[in-house]
Amino acid sequence: MAEEEGVTKKKSENFSEWYHEVIQKADIIDQRYPLQGFLVYKGNGLAILEKAIGFLEDLLNANGYTKCYFPPLIPESLLKKEEAHIRGFQDEVFWVTRAGQNEMGEKVALRPTSETAMYEMLKLWIRSHRDLPTKIYQSTSVWRYETKHTRPLIRDRELLWNEAHSLHATLKDVSKHMKEMIRIYSKVYEFCAIPVVFIDVKTGLFAGAVQAIEAYTIFPDGKVLEMGSINNLGQRFSKAFDIKFVKEDGTQQYVYQGCYGISERLVAAVVAIHGDDKGLVLPPNVASVQAVIVPIFGEDDENIIKYCKAVYRKLRKKFRIKLDLSREKTPGWKFNHYEMLGIPVRIEIGKKEVESKTVTLVRRNDREEFLSHFEKLPRELDNILKSIQTDMYKKALSEFQKRLSEAKNMDDLRKILNEKGGLVKTEWCGKQDCADNLKAESKGGEIIGVPYGVKEKANSSCVWCNDKSRYIVYVGNTY
Amino acid sequence: MAEEEGVTKKKSENFSEWYHEVIQKADIIDQRYPLQGFLVYKGNGLAILEKAIGFLEDLLNANGYTKCYFPPLIPESLLKKEEAHIRGFQDEVFWVTRAGQNEMGEKVALRPTSETAMYEMLKLWIRSHRDLPTKIYQSTSVWRYETKHTRPLIRDRELLWNEAHSLHATLKDVSKHMKEMIRIYSKVYEFCAIPVVFIDVKTGLFAGAVQAIEAYTIFPDGKVLEMGSINNLGQRFSKAFDIKFVKEDGTQQYVYQGCYGISERLVAAVVAIHGDDKGLVLPPNVASVQAVIVPIFGEDDENIIKYCKAVYRKLRKKFRIKLDLSREKTPGWKFNHYEMLGIPVRIEIGKKEVESKTVTLVRRNDREEFLSHFEKLPRELDNILKSIQTDMYKKALSEFQKRLSEAKNMDDLRKILNEKGGLVKTEWCGKQDCADNLKAESKGGEIIGVPYGVKEKANSSCVWCNDKSRYIVYVGNTY
Repeated sequence: MAEEEGVTKKKSENFSEWYHEVIQKADIIDQRYPLQGFLVYKGNGLAILEKAIGFLEDLLNANGYTKCYFPPLIPESLLKKEEAHIRGFQDEVFWVTRAGQNEMGEKVALRPTSETAMYEMLKLWIRSHRDLPTKIYQSTSVWRYETKHTRPLIRDRELLWNEAHSLHATLKDVSKHMKEMIRIYSKVYEFCAIPVVFIDVKTGLFAGAVQAIEAYTIFPDGKVLEMGSINNLGQRFSKAFDIKFVKEDGTQQYVYQGCYGISERLVAAVVAIHGDDKGLVLPPNVASVQAVIVPIFGEDDENIIKYCKAVYRKLRKKFRIKLDLSREKTPGWKFNHYEMLGIPVRIEIGKKEVESKTVTLVRRNDREEFLSHFEKLPRELDNILKSIQTDMYKKALSEFQKRLSEAKNMDDLRKILNEKGGLVKTEWCGKQDCADNLKAESKGGEIIGVPYGVKEKANSSCVWCNDKSRYIVYVGNTY
Repeated sequence: MAEEEGVTKKKSENFSEWYHEVIQKADIIDQRYPLQGFLVYKGNGLAILEKAIGFLEDLLNANGYTKCYFPPLIPESLLKKEEAHIRGFQDEVFWVTRAGQNEMGEKVALRPTSETAMYEMLKLWIRSHRDLPTKIYQSTSVWRYETKHTRPLIRDRELLWNEAHSLHATLKDVSKHMKEMIRIYSKVYEFCAIPVVFIDVKTGLFAGAVQAIEAYTIFPDGKVLEMGSINNLGQRFSKAFDIKFVKEDGTQQYVYQGCYGISERLVAAVVAIHGDDKGLVLPPNVASVQAVIVPIFGEDDENIIKYCKAVYRKLRKKFRIKLDLSREKTPGWKFNHYEMLGIPVRIEIGKKEVESKTVTLVRRNDREEFLSHFEKLPRELDNILKSIQTDMYKKALSEFQKRLSEAKNMDDLRKILNEKGGLVKTEWCGKQDCADNLKAESKGGEIIGVPYGVKEKANSSCVWCNDKSRYIVYVGNTY
């Protein structure tokens, strides 16, 4: 492989340059589409997202959700029905104003999210307590005119995501379902081998939410990234959209609602957390190709080809396999190329393997080699893929845990944020002023919120003002 | 089931009213979204489309295609690059002109189709003859501001579709691949039990195409519907977008291209062709639920529930099964309700079935009943679903063939179009005037094109002007 074809940047030296080079060269995305902040997803990148979202959809279906599809265009009058919602999104909306040669009567938004489109219809679908809970989702795109600096797969103007929405009879039912969604999202992150913590956020809630639990992961540069959001909407939207149901006692009541979103940032995290200086390292669960068969030509090539095909036929039903019989490139070039693409296992077949009816298997994540007999291959490959998946998650989790810290005072907090980043537990009085000052002074350290599920109570003083603290919080430099 | 909950219109008496009632009541779509021509897809409807498109995607992947995702927004300057293309679409484009509080510098189209977005990038991806063929597809939406009367799932302003694009070194390679696409699409139609003929269209080609092969089916009202399009683009776009490759001899050449589309009309055809006066009848391949278990309560209810659950557990891994243990509705109500939803098989379980360790299976399409023993159930259900699928296709095909006719003169043609509709084979001189006159005089009979793959040559006179005929053509009243 010519030097310029491989990855030239070092992940440990300049994470950002490495990231941009890898996503472009390893067929994740193409950033050259002539519209700022919009990406073309190539085969390798789209597969990660589709495998992850497909896994999520199965979990949602099993939980009683129905998959639907709503139009991406929302008339302005609908989008404006819930006040906090439109306030939050009005500067980010793309507007359709012309159709063919005509000006449109009312301008129409490209959805920045789908609450207002969905809830206008749910008003018509919900009648009685027997209709609750109602749970629907869609896997689509939303568009937000980000004015901040865009970063591919981290902050784009087009988000590819799954958004789920649930309607309940009581606030308690929403809270209970939010716990289920935390359990479901946790499985999706683990499926992608991405470690996260959930945080009950105290600043920057989803526009229209009364409570938000968000998942955060930590990137190799120490910055933290929001990876999904589980929102309690209370009755704000049901009141704005008039979504009522008849209770068992015959009286009417507004429903309680929750909404949940998870996006293409899954792809960013898979690339960033697992990649190395040679390129991508893909968890087998989300790899478009799980193993590539590379022949080592030289002697007895005809039998090598025959044997490669037999191996391919033996594996292709159970696994996602690529067979590369091309002769234009050397085995060495192919090794490098498929390592860059992150394919979890390489299957090498030369004269030696043909004669002994074996194959050589090489794991992408740690380059460990194994010999497998032809007959045992499906079971052994299955074991190897499973152990790669587990090992990658364990390794990522251990790196993640090294970046969880605690700080008692501003000196420690500054030092940790500066040296290793990650999430730093500290205490806070709850005043926005302190959060703002802390952020300015620490060059970006943001008070995100309260660690979810941690019983420990605040019992000391605010890290900034030293007044009595109210919350134990995570602070981090967010993307 | 209260009368108003079921289907009230008769398919044979008023197909159009029946169709509109069924798609709304059987959870196919909701037409009440407050934007003309835009539909909300509900669970039952979206499932048909996703099963069909999923089947197509597997075939495309096996054929060497890569699934990609391109932004739905196309800058005006890109959309305008190929002249015939923009001429064909300029009156149908929704334009985004504002972002947040700002006017955009250049207005941006909501894609009416993706050629211009994709080919701008393919120009960057194609270098050498070794890159050909390149085949990509996406399964997304496109938007067209239809000024004709919209009809749900037949003519919408939002199309849900799969579009595939291929690039080749020679025109012959495109033609060869078009044949493969005809084979692939044929499999998709058969998967949905929809009979079609392919027609080499002579009027109304896709804007920018040099040749188009389209699939047509026949609706119960005798009108014909275009169900998919296989287009030869020649070098029109490659010249406009400068997509060149280096040949083996070192010289440069523009690529040859084809593009292929298939849409939500699949859902319309499944509903229209197979439904009956009780509602939907779904081919098992595309049914969101393939069998529903309905208990007949009365005596020994506890054991009935236990047995229903055992049946559910035995089937749910291999089939899409619903278990309805609710007690609010009678079995009769449930029978009607699930028949309306088109679920292919009903599994009835009462005291008798519990005692004999059997179940009663009822086929939706012809109401035939079967008894199956618990132990043999998975295999028997599999057989029944397969035979329903085959029987439905056979029945539809026989109806379809009854509506294929021939006409030697205008009297016959008029009479056939008027009495039974369908596709009528006749001869045509090739002059547009004759086509226009024929259409006006026969109240909509359109000369679509030449039956694909038919070797027979024109040897008589034009059905309109009596001049020497040039083509054997199909005429039909199109939607």
